Amino acid sequence: MNRLPLIAVIGSGATDGSSFETARAVGRCIGLARCHLICGGRGGVMAAACQGHREGRVGVDPRGVTIGVLPGSDAAEANPFVDVVIPTGFGLARNAIIVCAAEGVVAVAGGSGTLSEIALAWQMGRPIAVIASSGGWSERLAGEPLDDKRHDVLFDAATPEEAISFLLGRLRRET
Amino acid sequence: MNRLPLIAVIGSGATDGSSFETARAVGRCIGLARCHLICGGRGGVMAAACQGHREGRVGVDPRGVTIGVLPGSDAAEANPFVDVVIPTGFGLARNAIIVCAAEGVVAVAGGSGTLSEIALAWQMGRPIAVIASSGGWSERLAGEPLDDKRHDVLFDAATPEEAISFLLGRLRRET
Amino acid sequence: MNRLPLIAVIGSGATDGSSFETARAVGRCIGLARCHLICGGRGGVMAAACQGHREGRVGVDPRGVTIGVLPGSDAAEANPFVDVVIPTGFGLARNAIIVCAAEGVVAVAGGSGTLSEIALAWQMGRPIAVIASSGGWSERLAGEPLDDKRHDVLFDAATPEEAISFLLGRLRRET
Amino acid sequence: MNRLPLIAVIGSGATDGSSFETARAVGRCIGLARCHLICGGRGGVMAAACQGHREGRVGVDPRGVTIGVLPGSDAAEANPFVDVVIPTGFGLARNAIIVCAAEGVVAVAGGSGTLSEIALAWQMGRPIAVIASSGGWSERLAGEPLDDKRHDVLFDAATPEEAISFLLGRLRRET
Repeated sequence: MNRLPLIAVIGSGATDGSSFETARAVGRCIGLARCHLICGGRGGVMAAACQGHREGRVGVDPRGVTIGVLPGSDAAEANPFVDVVIPTGFGLARNAIIVCAAEGVVAVAGGSGTLSEIALAWQMGRPIAVIASSGGWSERLAGEPLDDKRHDVLFDAATPEEAISFLLGRLRRET
Repeated sequence: MNRLPLIAVIGSGATDGSSFETARAVGRCIGLARCHLICGGRGGVMAAACQGHREGRVGVDPRGVTIGVLPGSDAAEANPFVDVVIPTGFGLARNAIIVCAAEGVVAVAGGSGTLSEIALAWQMGRPIAVIASSGGWSERLAGEPLDDKRHDVLFDAATPEEAISFLLGRLRRET
Repeated sequence: MNRLPLIAVIGSGATDGSSFETARAVGRCIGLARCHLICGGRGGVMAAACQGHREGRVGVDPRGVTIGVLPGSDAAEANPFVDVVIPTGFGLARNAIIVCAAEGVVAVAGGSGTLSEIALAWQMGRPIAVIASSGGWSERLAGEPLDDKRHDVLFDAATPEEAISFLLGRLRRET
Repeated sequence: MNRLPLIAVIGSGATDGSSFETARAVGRCIGLARCHLICGGRGGVMAAACQGHREGRVGVDPRGVTIGVLPGSDAAEANPFVDVVIPTGFGLARNAIIVCAAEGVVAVAGGSGTLSEIALAWQMGRPIAVIASSGGWSERLAGEPLDDKRHDVLFDAATPEEAISFLLGRLRRET
C-alpha cells in the first residue's frame, strides 16, 4: 500500500515568533520525512507547521499533504497552507479526532487546548514528543508521564529533527 | 491558495459488481477533475471509488488524494486505496464528518448508512448528486427533495461524469 | 437497579397544530409508562413531547425525566419542558447521540433531520415506531424496512399509545 | 422553568479507598443541593459520586438525577447508580460532552482522562473546583490557571462541601 505516515502537530493558535519558527521547522521535518501532517487547521503553531511542511516536501517523492481538522463547519477558517480542509462542526471534540488519526504527535508550546490534546493522545496510546524549549505545556510536561497507565513519558525533544526521528523510530518498531 | 475541491462519495460497504464499477467510474472522474475524494474508508462503494481515483489521477497535476474517515480507531480497517486514513473512534457519527467536510456529495446505490449521510448532507446544504441507475436509496430519492428547507432536489445523474460535472458547476457558482 | 427505560422522540423543529398534539400525546404516554424521554431539546415536536411527558408523569412513581441533547453549546436553546439539558457543541452529529442513547425511538412527522435520525437508529439496531398519520418521513416510511440489514420494519403505529406499547414490548422481549 | 443545575464530577475509573469516599461525599453534596450530576458513567470516582448522589438526595425535593455519558454504545457498561445512561459510541470524545453539558465541574484525583476533561472544561469557560487532597491531577493543578485565556484558577477546595458551594456561588453570580 505504501501509505505515508500521519503525524499530528499540536500547539497554540496564537504564538510568539520563536515558537512559530519552531513549529515551522517541525513541519519542514515532517514534509522532508515523507509524512502527512494533521493539525487543527487554524493559525499560530498550526499555520507555521503547515507552511513548513510545504517547504520541506519540495523535491521529495512521494509527497505528503497537510490536513486541517477544524472545530467549525466553515472551510474558510483554515489557514492557507492546509491542503485538505476537514470542517467538522464538532467544536473542541475535534481535538480527539486529530490525535486519534495521528500515528505520532508533536507538541510545540501550548495552552489548555494543547493540554487536552496531549492528554487524549496519552489515553489513546499515541507516541508523543514535546519541544520543551518552546515553553507552555510542552515545557511543563517534558520527560514526564501523565499517569501510570503507560510506561513511557512525553519525549523531551531538543530539536524538531529529534522529535520527528523519535516518532518515526516508534512507528518502525511497531510495524 | 489553489486548494483542490473535496468531493465525498457515499454508498454501501457491500456492493454487487455493477455498483462497484459505477463507484469506480465516479472515483476516476473525481481524480481526473483534480479533486480530493473523501469517503468512509471501508469496502464496497468506498473502496471502488478510491481505486478509481488512483486510476483517474494518473498524469494529472496537481493530484488529489483519497481520504478515508473511519468509524473505529484502527487505521488497519481502511481499504488499500485510501491515501490518508482518519480513524475517528466516533462510530456512525463519523458520517456527519464526511458530509460536513465535503463541498459536494455523490451517492452510489446505498442502504441505511448512505441514507443517513444523504439526510445529513441535505441539512448541511451540500450539493448532492445520485446515480439513480445504481439502485438503493440513490434510485429511490433521485430527483426529489428531502423536505422543504431547500429549493433544489437530489440531482439525478445519468452517468458518473454528469454527477461530477454537476457538482463542479455548483462549486464554481458559489465561489 | 430499577433503571427506567429511555425512549427517544424525534420529529421536526417546526410543526403544525396536528403533529404538535400527536407529539404531546406521545410524550404523555412515555411519562405515564414510567420512562425517561430523550430528544433534540428544541421546539416543535421536541417541545410538544417534553410538555406531554410532564403532563403524563403526574402522579406516577417513580417518575422519569426529559433530556434534551442540543446541537449547540448553549443550554438556553432548550425548550422549557426539558429537565436535563445536554448542550454538546457537536452540531448535527448530536442526532447520533440521541438514537444511540435510546432503547426505542418514536418518530412524529419529520423532515431531513428526522430522516437522518431514523436512518442512524436503524443502523444501530434500535426498535423504531412511526406515527404514519403525522405525515412527513414518518408517513413515507411506515411499515417499510430501510435496507436488508434488519429483518423488521419501521412499525406503523396508528396511535401514540400503540407506538409506546410496541417499543415497551420490544424492550421486554430483549431483557 | 425551575431547571435544576447540572454539575459534573470527573476522576479516575480506578480509585483507592480514600478518593472513593471523597467522590461519594462530593456526590452527596450535589444531591443535597438539588442538582443533577453528570459523569462518565463508569466505575471508580464516577460510581462513588453517583452512589453518594442517591444518598444525598433522600428527602430532598425536587430531586436531581445522575446521568452517565458512556464512551461506548452499550448501556450495560454503566455503574448501577446511574439513573439515566447515555451511551454515545463516541469514545473519548464523550469527555467533551460531559464538560460542555455541565454548569460546573468538580475533579477528584484523576489521571490523563481527568486531565483531558479539566483542559476541555477550561477552554469552554466552565467553573472548575478540584479537591487537592485527593491527589492526582487535582493536586497538581489546584489553585493554578491552565493558561492566560482565563483570569481565574482551578479552585482549590479543602472539602467536597466547599467545592459545591464554590460552584453554586459561581452559577448564581452568572444568572
